[in-house]
Amino acid sequence: MITSILTIGNELMSGRTADINSSFIAREINLQGWQVEAMMSVGDNFDAIKNRLNYLLTLTDVVICTGGLGPTADDITTAAIAHAFGLPLYTDETVLQGIKDRFAKYNLRWVENNAKQAMFPQGAEIIANPVGTAAGFVLRIKDKLIFVTPGVPHETQRMVPEGVIPVLQRYFPNPDQYLAKQTIKTFGLSEASVDERLKDIDFAAMRVNVGFYPVFPENHVVLISRHKTQDEAQNNLQKAQDEVTFRLQDYIFSYGEKTLEEVIAGLLTEGKKTIAIAESCTGGLITNRLTDVSGSSDYLERGLVTYSNTAKIGMLSVPAEVIEKYGAVSEETARLMAEGVRKLSGTDLGISSTGIAGPTGGSPEKPVGTVYLALADSHKTICRHYNFRWDRRRNKHVFAEAALIMLKDFLQGKEK
Amino acid sequence: MITSILTIGNELMSGRTADINSSFIAREINLQGWQVEAMMSVGDNFDAIKNRLNYLLTLTDVVICTGGLGPTADDITTAAIAHAFGLPLYTDETVLQGIKDRFAKYNLRWVENNAKQAMFPQGAEIIANPVGTAAGFVLRIKDKLIFVTPGVPHETQRMVPEGVIPVLQRYFPNPDQYLAKQTIKTFGLSEASVDERLKDIDFAAMRVNVGFYPVFPENHVVLISRHKTQDEAQNNLQKAQDEVTFRLQDYIFSYGEKTLEEVIAGLLTEGKKTIAIAESCTGGLITNRLTDVSGSSDYLERGLVTYSNTAKIGMLSVPAEVIEKYGAVSEETARLMAEGVRKLSGTDLGISSTGIAGPTGGSPEKPVGTVYLALADSHKTICRHYNFRWDRRRNKHVFAEAALIMLKDFLQGKEK
Repeated sequence: MITSILTIGNELMSGRTADINSSFIAREINLQGWQVEAMMSVGDNFDAIKNRLNYLLTLTDVVICTGGLGPTADDITTAAIAHAFGLPLYTDETVLQGIKDRFAKYNLRWVENNAKQAMFPQGAEIIANPVGTAAGFVLRIKDKLIFVTPGVPHETQRMVPEGVIPVLQRYFPNPDQYLAKQTIKTFGLSEASVDERLKDIDFAAMRVNVGFYPVFPENHVVLISRHKTQDEAQNNLQKAQDEVTFRLQDYIFSYGEKTLEEVIAGLLTEGKKTIAIAESCTGGLITNRLTDVSGSSDYLERGLVTYSNTAKIGMLSVPAEVIEKYGAVSEETARLMAEGVRKLSGTDLGISSTGIAGPTGGSPEKPVGTVYLALADSHKTICRHYNFRWDRRRNKHVFAEAALIMLKDFLQGKEK
Repeated sequence: MITSILTIGNELMSGRTADINSSFIAREINLQGWQVEAMMSVGDNFDAIKNRLNYLLTLTDVVICTGGLGPTADDITTAAIAHAFGLPLYTDETVLQGIKDRFAKYNLRWVENNAKQAMFPQGAEIIANPVGTAAGFVLRIKDKLIFVTPGVPHETQRMVPEGVIPVLQRYFPNPDQYLAKQTIKTFGLSEASVDERLKDIDFAAMRVNVGFYPVFPENHVVLISRHKTQDEAQNNLQKAQDEVTFRLQDYIFSYGEKTLEEVIAGLLTEGKKTIAIAESCTGGLITNRLTDVSGSSDYLERGLVTYSNTAKIGMLSVPAEVIEKYGAVSEETARLMAEGVRKLSGTDLGISSTGIAGPTGGSPEKPVGTVYLALADSHKTICRHYNFRWDRRRNKHVFAEAALIMLKDFLQGKEK
């Protein structure tokens, strides 16, 4: 089956927004063993949408459109598509009530143009939006299918796998109907390096599709195996996973869909450990990520962003002489910060970060991107030292990621 | 002048690589006052490239292509374009020598297929590549122009402004060459409400283009005015800005490209104020955003994520009785947290957050999404109370945004 993707929105044509929906959808389509033949973007323009859609329908069996489903006047995708095929629009009362309920729940004032989001071309099958007000739909025109989902990436990223792919599977059944899937999450290798290391694996022979998803600062490898029986699908998946594991080794930090902070939450809960955090260069990001998990108050006692030396000395009892002798950004300071926050908070573990996020503050010995990360329990303190080379915001993110990886390794007994 | 963009490469169609060249080129084109009518991506396929190119030439005066200029067998863009218009290929000896010199300079072994990068369709004008071996070119076919630059983003990002735009300016001189631009940032209104409030403004009469860009949890309105003189462009922009300001009033928190944390950084520096933060439900996000600004260590003394009551009592001196009587999530606790962190840190200002991000922990009186935000200086403490209804992660983000808005208002004397 051959598909094309049409992303719709003036913000794409002005270059204000880069299109990330197309590559997401293409990966989902390729993972199913289907093919993308063309990707297009078009502005919120009635005739242009019609024209591009007709062209893509000459090339492919399926067109997946995103964007232009909002409530405002420039959102015209539904009307343009209905008009292109001479279909009247109707209001779906269930969808309308759902939007009204959502407004009531979130205490938002109802504005009448929101009712537009409950209108669909006659004959459309609605695709639910579990995370927003803009429902999608699919239209069958002769032997072709036209899908429409919202332009908001996190909505489309739910609706394509949960709503679009199942409809495609129904229309284009795959004889290899059993499916096994694994996500392998890595940190510390570039996407090109991951690709290079895996390029000699013959995934096709194992009937496994492979997808690469960079989720800064992580790179995820997704394997999907399809077969006539569940056992065979699972066996082939395991073979492929073993090959990937052999080539990526220690760069792999987890298997499965859980986020790194969710994996850590499980390990802390299971091990009945509490933790406190002392951050400097990461500015609160380590604590923020740990608190993204609901229930984190069970193990996270406190987080301190000791940005000034006064705070490091006063709250964490790092001796002024240590800071003076080795610097605030040093292994010595990092270790004392982790030990200090652990003692102050009375927790099982203390973790710390100190580094230079940039763009200023670097020196020849400690350039921008230098970071020291330490972790203390009642027996010992460990420290890791890295040198990254991103911009300020990405340095902060990669520092926090490395700190969480260290914590996970420690909780799994990989670092004594 | 109307242009289209065609990005070429199998890595785009598999979703492995997201296309960032299109949005870059579109911004460059729009800034010149020209318009992008379509963007397409296509794989490294002879017939598909020819087919898409011919389609785009029916729509637009100019097609700007990127990708497929490498030395390997799958790089076929030049050959496909030459074939599409029946043009023979020739080798440009100057370009060939340049590539050979580059190989010598970097001590790279010469492989004969690199000579392919010196081949161009007859009649092509070469566009130099100052940062790589793949030169680009422009072809004039009747009254249409076809540009080709490499797929490597940092090469195209040099060659479009330095090579492509000057050729376009030569072919399509612009009478409305002066441009004025303003970004108006809002918080607290949905995208639909912003649109609703602005829909009676006749932007076209002012020759101003308007764009709406949701950047959660903010909504940005961008105005672009073009005219024959800089004064007229600026006057029309001011008129449009006044109309928008009148309708959005207090929901506007800044004008211009600066982020909220950059605006606050300017106000704190200007007013010579220092600040400390005590966060609960925001888990470090307020501190993280403030530390995204380089130089924030000048005014940010420390940030505490007092997740446990012990931390609130021990570090911020919030009396246990207050927490017991009013709850950790209450105006009383928020005020004492802000005052406590200010005293502890010896800063001019203290800011705090306490709330329920969810999905658990809500009650009928204090549902999920409830937040109290307080700000203390040496004279007084102010408090704001909100009820948002997003998911956990978005609640944290919207809480942090509201805290920063409160801080900005206070620093601008809007809240005494």
